[in-house]
Amino acid sequence: MTKAMGRFAPRIHNDVDARSPKSVARVHSYTRPLRRDLSAAIASARVAIESLSPSVDVGRFAVKRSVGQPLVVEADVFMDGHDQLGVHLLWRAADEQTWNRVPMQHLGNDRWGATFQANRIGLHEFTVEAGLDRFASYREDLRKKQEAGVDISLDAQEARQWLRGCLKRACNRLGRSRALQQEAQRTLEVLQSAAAAETLAYLSSPAAQSLMEGTVAWEFMVRLPAVPLRVERRAASFAHWYELFPRSQSGSVRRHGNFDDVIERLPAVREMGFDVLYFPPIHPIGMTNRKGRNNSLVAQADEPGSPYAIGSEEGGHDAIHPQLGTLEDFRRLIAVARHHDIEIALDFAVQCSPDHPWLRAHPQWFAWRADGSIRYAENPPKKYEDIVGVDFYARIAEGGDAARTLWLALLDVVLFWVKEGVRTFRVDNPHTKPLPFWEWLIAQVQERYPEVIFLSEAFTRPKMMYRLAKLGFTQSYTYFTWREHKQELSDYLNEISCPPVSDFFRPNFFVNTPDINPRFLQVSGRAGFLIRAALASTMSAVWGMYSGFELCEASAVPGKEEYLDSEKYEIRAWDWRRPGNIVAEVTVLNRVRRENPAFHRQEGIRFHRADNDQILMYTRATPERDNVVLIVVSLDPFAEQGANMELPLWEFGLADDGVLQVEDLLHGYRFEWQGKNQHISLSPEHPYSIWRLSSRP
Amino acid sequence: MTKAMGRFAPRIHNDVDARSPKSVARVHSYTRPLRRDLSAAIASARVAIESLSPSVDVGRFAVKRSVGQPLVVEADVFMDGHDQLGVHLLWRAADEQTWNRVPMQHLGNDRWGATFQANRIGLHEFTVEAGLDRFASYREDLRKKQEAGVDISLDAQEARQWLRGCLKRACNRLGRSRALQQEAQRTLEVLQSAAAAETLAYLSSPAAQSLMEGTVAWEFMVRLPAVPLRVERRAASFAHWYELFPRSQSGSVRRHGNFDDVIERLPAVREMGFDVLYFPPIHPIGMTNRKGRNNSLVAQADEPGSPYAIGSEEGGHDAIHPQLGTLEDFRRLIAVARHHDIEIALDFAVQCSPDHPWLRAHPQWFAWRADGSIRYAENPPKKYEDIVGVDFYARIAEGGDAARTLWLALLDVVLFWVKEGVRTFRVDNPHTKPLPFWEWLIAQVQERYPEVIFLSEAFTRPKMMYRLAKLGFTQSYTYFTWREHKQELSDYLNEISCPPVSDFFRPNFFVNTPDINPRFLQVSGRAGFLIRAALASTMSAVWGMYSGFELCEASAVPGKEEYLDSEKYEIRAWDWRRPGNIVAEVTVLNRVRRENPAFHRQEGIRFHRADNDQILMYTRATPERDNVVLIVVSLDPFAEQGANMELPLWEFGLADDGVLQVEDLLHGYRFEWQGKNQHISLSPEHPYSIWRLSSRP
Repeated sequence: MTKAMGRFAPRIHNDVDARSPKSVARVHSYTRPLRRDLSAAIASARVAIESLSPSVDVGRFAVKRSVGQPLVVEADVFMDGHDQLGVHLLWRAADEQTWNRVPMQHLGNDRWGATFQANRIGLHEFTVEAGLDRFASYREDLRKKQEAGVDISLDAQEARQWLRGCLKRACNRLGRSRALQQEAQRTLEVLQSAAAAETLAYLSSPAAQSLMEGTVAWEFMVRLPAVPLRVERRAASFAHWYELFPRSQSGSVRRHGNFDDVIERLPAVREMGFDVLYFPPIHPIGMTNRKGRNNSLVAQADEPGSPYAIGSEEGGHDAIHPQLGTLEDFRRLIAVARHHDIEIALDFAVQCSPDHPWLRAHPQWFAWRADGSIRYAENPPKKYEDIVGVDFYARIAEGGDAARTLWLALLDVVLFWVKEGVRTFRVDNPHTKPLPFWEWLIAQVQERYPEVIFLSEAFTRPKMMYRLAKLGFTQSYTYFTWREHKQELSDYLNEISCPPVSDFFRPNFFVNTPDINPRFLQVSGRAGFLIRAALASTMSAVWGMYSGFELCEASAVPGKEEYLDSEKYEIRAWDWRRPGNIVAEVTVLNRVRRENPAFHRQEGIRFHRADNDQILMYTRATPERDNVVLIVVSLDPFAEQGANMELPLWEFGLADDGVLQVEDLLHGYRFEWQGKNQHISLSPEHPYSIWRLSSRP
Repeated sequence: MTKAMGRFAPRIHNDVDARSPKSVARVHSYTRPLRRDLSAAIASARVAIESLSPSVDVGRFAVKRSVGQPLVVEADVFMDGHDQLGVHLLWRAADEQTWNRVPMQHLGNDRWGATFQANRIGLHEFTVEAGLDRFASYREDLRKKQEAGVDISLDAQEARQWLRGCLKRACNRLGRSRALQQEAQRTLEVLQSAAAAETLAYLSSPAAQSLMEGTVAWEFMVRLPAVPLRVERRAASFAHWYELFPRSQSGSVRRHGNFDDVIERLPAVREMGFDVLYFPPIHPIGMTNRKGRNNSLVAQADEPGSPYAIGSEEGGHDAIHPQLGTLEDFRRLIAVARHHDIEIALDFAVQCSPDHPWLRAHPQWFAWRADGSIRYAENPPKKYEDIVGVDFYARIAEGGDAARTLWLALLDVVLFWVKEGVRTFRVDNPHTKPLPFWEWLIAQVQERYPEVIFLSEAFTRPKMMYRLAKLGFTQSYTYFTWREHKQELSDYLNEISCPPVSDFFRPNFFVNTPDINPRFLQVSGRAGFLIRAALASTMSAVWGMYSGFELCEASAVPGKEEYLDSEKYEIRAWDWRRPGNIVAEVTVLNRVRRENPAFHRQEGIRFHRADNDQILMYTRATPERDNVVLIVVSLDPFAEQGANMELPLWEFGLADDGVLQVEDLLHGYRFEWQGKNQHISLSPEHPYSIWRLSSRP
C-alpha cells in the first residue's frame, strides 16, 4: 500500500514523526485529553492502538536487542463496529527513509502480533499502523450473509461499485505501474457484468487481495509514534569477562608488569574461555596523597598507588602509565588480543589525581573551596584524598562554557581510545555523575561507533541502576555478588530476565571484583568458588571474574569485603597453576555456554521445584526450545545435599511418566530419565550438574 | 518558593505545559531518545522522575476520583550523587492559574509520596516537581561531618558564603515582602560573624527553613507534564439504579402508562433505597417496520413498538412520546423525583426509526444504498429492521459538513435534556459508534455541566469496554451478569477494584436488564435473586436492577436470555406486592450500603479463605479501616452450604486467637468471635450474611 485511494485520504496520526531525529524529550511526554474543537475530533483517531510492546517507558528510551535476535511486537488494536481491521508492523534503521512492513496477525482479545529481525547494528525504530480495511470488510460481510442464506445481490452491487471507484482512481493515478493498470482495467471489465456470487468469488481471490494491496489504502489510518530500538552486536548480550591488573603480570612483585607481560597471559585467558579482557585504569598515577598498601593514607616512595588516581605530570586520561609501556606497546597488545579473539576493555573513571594536567590547564572544570584549596571527592563524611571530581555544571550560572569544554574533553577521551581500537569500556561509578552526561556521551560515541559497549559499575539503588541502563549503558554490574540464598536468587533472576527489565537491562554477573571480596567466598573454600562460578555462568548471558578467583584467592582485610594486600594499591605476583585452582572447571563452564544457544540470551530461564532450600534447579531454553539445558546447583559448600526434584516433562509435551533423553554436558555421557519425579544428590566436590534435555532419542 | 535565587535560574522541563488546554494528542505521545547537541544535554533534566501514579496510559486519559476522595500521588525521584532532593506535588483545578504545593515525603527506595483532596467537581491536573535542595544539602553534609567528628569550619564557611549570596539577591529583588527582607537582613548580620557550630545550628532552625522556602529556589528543577484528573460528584461512584418502563406503570395492560403513573411509583422506589431512576427511551416511536410482541417482525395495529425505534412524525430525540405525557409532565416528574432524592436518568440511543424527522430533514446524515433504499442497522448477518444508524463520517471525503452538523445535533440532544434537568444518561451501545465521538461529546457536555454522568452500555470485548471508560464514560455495565462461580467472581472483582483499572473504570453491577434475563435466575428461584442482589450490592459501589427483579420475575423466551413478553415490545402490568418478592431484602441491602462507608468506593475489597467453592467470603474496608464489613454469600440457590472460614484477624492487628467484635448488619444484634477459624452455614432461605467487624469492644 502506498498512497490513498480509498474513501478518505489516509490521516496519519503521528505526534512525533521523527525521521531525522533531532529533538530530545527531557521527561516523559505526557499528553492530556482536553476540550477539542469539532473538526479536530472528527479527524482524530477512530482506531485505537494501545499497549504496544516492547517499549521502555512508553518509548522514552530505546528497547535493546542484539543483531539477529527476533523482535516480537504486539499491540491492542480495535475500533467501533464490525468492520475488518488491517494492522501493520513498521520498522526501519534510523538512517533509512522507507519502512519495512509486516502484516500483524490477530492473536485474540484484540491483541495483534508480528515479528521482525534487524540485521544491522545501530539505532532502529518500529511502530504499528492500523486502519479500516474496506476491501476485507466487504468480503467478510458478503461471506457471512451468503453463509446465512441472506440475499447478497444488493450488497454485491455496492461492493462492485466501491471497487470500480477504487480501480478507476488507481488507473488515473500517475506513476502507477503499467502491469497494475492493466490488471485494474481487466478487473473493471469483469466486474462490469459480475453477478453476486462472482463478486464474492473475486473478492476472495488472491489476485484481488494483491491488486488491492497495491492500490487501495486503508481508511481511518492511525500510526503510533515510533519506538526506538538499539540493535547491538552479540558481545553486548553474550560475553565472558576477565579482569586483571597489568602491573601484576610480571610474575614478580619486584618488577612492574607491562603490556608485553599481558600478551604472554592471553593464551591462558583464552583457553579458559574468556573473550573480554578488562584492565583497571592504565593511565599515569598521581603522586599527591598517593595511597599506600591496603588503602593506607601515606604511601612509601616505592609504592605504585591506586590506578584510579588518574593523572600525573606524565599525562592524564589519554596517556599510558610509562611503566606499562608505550602507546605502540598498547597497539600491539590490542592486535595480538584480536588474534586470540579477545577484546581489550578499558576503565573509564571520570576523576583526577591532584596532579592531573587538567587541574592546571583547566582549573574552571574543578570545584575550588573557600580557602583556595581543591575539593576532594567525598561522600560525606567519607573523603577520597587521592582524587578530585570534576564539576559537570561548572560556571553554568555565570554563562561560561566550562561545562561545555569539560563534557567535550571527556567525550574526546573515550573517542581517543576508540580510535586506538578499544570497543568496550567499563565505567567507574556512573551513578555519581549526572544522568544527562551519560545519555549524551553514549549517544555521541555510538552515533559514530555503534559497536561500542559500555558496562555500568553502578553499585547503587535499584532505580538508579536501571535508569543508567535505560539511557544507554549496554551492560550493568548487578546485586548477584550478594545474592546467596535460593529464594533471593530466583526472585532476582526472574526480575531481570523478563520484560520490562530485560528489554533495557543486561546483567553482567561478576563473581568478584577488586572492590568486592564476597564474604561467602571468604569462608566457603574451593567448593564455594565452584558454586559461584556455576551460578554466574549459567544464570547470566554475560558473566565475569576478577583474576585470582580461579585460584580461589580469598584473603580479606579482617571484617571487610576487601581483598588483603589488594592489587589496587600494590603489585602482586601470582602462581597461575596454584594447587586447588578451578581453571579446568571454569574452562568447561565457558565451553558449555558457547556450545549451547540457550545460554546466549538472558530470557528463557525458568526455575523448577526441588524440595531442598540448598538446591537450586532451573532450565534455560532457546525460544524454539531446540536447546534446553537443566542446571542443578547446591548452595552448600560444606555438606552433601539431596533433593527430590520435579522434571518439567510437560514442557516437552510428555506425560508424567514420559522419558527424557539426557546428556551430561560436564562429562559427556548420555542416559534416560523416566518419570517426572527424580532425586539428585550433590557434594561440595561436585556441587553442580548441567544436562541437555530432549524428548527425542 | 517563588522565584530563582539559587545558583541557577530554575529550568522547568515541561514538554507539555498546558495551562489553557487547547491541543489534543490523538495517540500516545511517545518520545524518542536521540542525538542531542551538547547545550541541550547540559540543560536537560538532571533529576529523574519516573513511574508517576496514578496515571491512565501515561496521562493520555484522566484519572477519575469523586469529590472529597483523597488522591495519593507517588513517583520515583532520584539524581546522581549525594545531594538532598526537594520534591513537591503540584495540583490545581483546570480553571486555576496557581498550583497548590504539597511537599512529598521519601517513602524509601527512591519512592516519594503525598496526598491531596480536590473539593470541586470538574477537570483538575496534578504533577510532580523536584530539584536539588542546596540548603538541605549543606545542612545534611555539615550534620554528618560533625557527627563523624570531622572539622567543619571550612564547610561552614562555604555554607555561609552561599547563604549570604542567596539572601543578598533576595534583598535586592523588587516586590519582595518587607518582612522577608528584614528577616534576610537580620540573618545576614548574624551569619557575618557566625562560627561553624552556630552556622549548623542556624541551618537546622525552622526560621532558616521558612526563610529559604520563601527566597531560594531548588537547582536543576524538573517538572513532569501534568496528569489530568476528573473529579466527579459522589453519585458517579456510589449509587443505586432502578430501571422501569414508564408505559408499564399504569397497573393495566390496557392503559398506556405515563409520567404521572411514574410519579406515583417514586415513594416505593425510594423506600427500596434506589436513588437513580432510569427509563428506556421516552421519545416518539416509529411506525415503519415496528416490532410486535416478543420481537416479532410485524406489529399489530395496537402494539406500541420498541422505544429504541426512536422518532416518528411526532418528533425525534428531543420529543416525548405523546402517550407518556408532555414536556410539562416530564418537568413535574423531575421535580417530584428530586423531592424524593431520586435522580431521573434517560437513555441516549443514537439511532432512528425510518420515520425519524431527521431522515427527511437531513438525508445526508444517513447511509443510502445503491438502490436508493436506506441502510438498516446490522451486525452481519443480523439486521435490525426497525432502526437505521447514522453515518458519523458522512460526506467527509467530499469535504461536506454533514458529519459536523450531525455531531452537533447529537450534542444538542444531550444538552436539551440536560437543560431540562437530566444529569444522568445511560448510553445505548456506545461501542458501535466512533470512539472520538464519545470523547468529544462527553468533554463538551462536562465542560458546561461537569456534574453530568454517562453510563456506558458496552457489552463488548474487554479492551473496548475499558477504552470507553478511559475516554470519559463515568460508569460502565460489566460482565457481572455472567459471572456465577467463586473464582471468576473474585478474579473479576480484583481486576476492577485495583489500579490501573479502578483509576478510570467504575463498574455498575446490574443484576438484570431488559436485554438480559440471566440463565442463572431462570432456574434459581427466589434464592437466586437474593444471591445476585447480595453480590451486586456488596461487590460494586454502584449497582442496579431492572424492575421485576424484586418480584423474582424470570419467565424467558425458551432457550434465550430474553424475557418472555418483554416490555421492550409490549405494555405490562405488575403486582408490586406479588408474593415471594424480595423488596424487604433489597431495602435492607441498600440501607446497609448507605450506613457503611466501606461500600461507598470500589477499592478496598479483599477476598478471604473459605474451604467451599460455593461460599464466597470478602471484606470491604475504608482506607482508614474505621469501617470494615465482612460479607459471606452462598452461591448455591438449592442446598445448604457450609464452610470453614479464616477470619482475617491479622488485618486488625490481632493474634490468631484474638477476639473480634461483630455486629450483624441484617438483623442488628452483636456478638464476639474468638479465634481466626470459624464455621458458617448458609441456606437458600438466607444465602448471605453481612457483619461489621471491629477489634474494639
